[in-house]
Amino acid sequence: MVGKIDHIGIVVANLESSMARYQTILGLQLKEIEEIEVDGAILRVAFFPAGDTNIELVHTMAKNGLAADFLRDHGEGIHHIAFAVDDLKSIFDTLLGQGVSFLWDRIIPGSRGSQVAFFQPKEFNGVYIELVQR
Amino acid sequence: MVGKIDHIGIVVANLESSMARYQTILGLQLKEIEEIEVDGAILRVAFFPAGDTNIELVHTMAKNGLAADFLRDHGEGIHHIAFAVDDLKSIFDTLLGQGVSFLWDRIIPGSRGSQVAFFQPKEFNGVYIELVQR
Repeated sequence: MVGKIDHIGIVVANLESSMARYQTILGLQLKEIEEIEVDGAILRVAFFPAGDTNIELVHTMAKNGLAADFLRDHGEGIHHIAFAVDDLKSIFDTLLGQGVSFLWDRIIPGSRGSQVAFFQPKEFNGVYIELVQR
Repeated sequence: MVGKIDHIGIVVANLESSMARYQTILGLQLKEIEEIEVDGAILRVAFFPAGDTNIELVHTMAKNGLAADFLRDHGEGIHHIAFAVDDLKSIFDTLLGQGVSFLWDRIIPGSRGSQVAFFQPKEFNGVYIELVQR
């Protein structure tokens, strides 16, 4: 049903110093930095391609929202895994009909012009999994 | 320096019920389950290919070791990101010489006949990153 992993989201407290670690130690190349609004919270996101997926460093100054809540409750760390899908609306409706629960009961805009939906983490033992259609 | 992401390691408390979630909700296909010993701790690992990488569900009955410590301290969750490299020995020696710190001061055997090294998580703001050569 899902395709490749579109990206892995890592919440960081300081975007510039974190980017430097991934660049100098691992040799990853920055593709772009995007500022986006997800459910009312402004995020700055740095994308580093790796194979057919991306490392996404996520920083926020917001007090609330997915990234801010995670940073407050868990500290910095790997936040979510996003799987690419071809027909998000159809998959979302099908899973919702099967009783699978999502964080928001609708599809929302994600980074780089995408449409996304997040599962309730309880569906995957606490792991945040996102579906993304580009 | 690093190549594609070889796998994403997720620590789970119950392998069978976790596998079922990834299979039924996401439609991922199980490739294999392997029992391995990492630094003295026995792990059962289920591999689910996704694009050019893998989701690796990690379960352990051990009381100590990377997975057991993570489960006790953080609960279930995304544990590490493993990057594929072509020449682990050379990269390991170079980074060690630059003062980058690793969890163990040697390369150890990983899953499926691989050789691996883990960075000290402080190198990446608490994120466990592994280098793996197959």
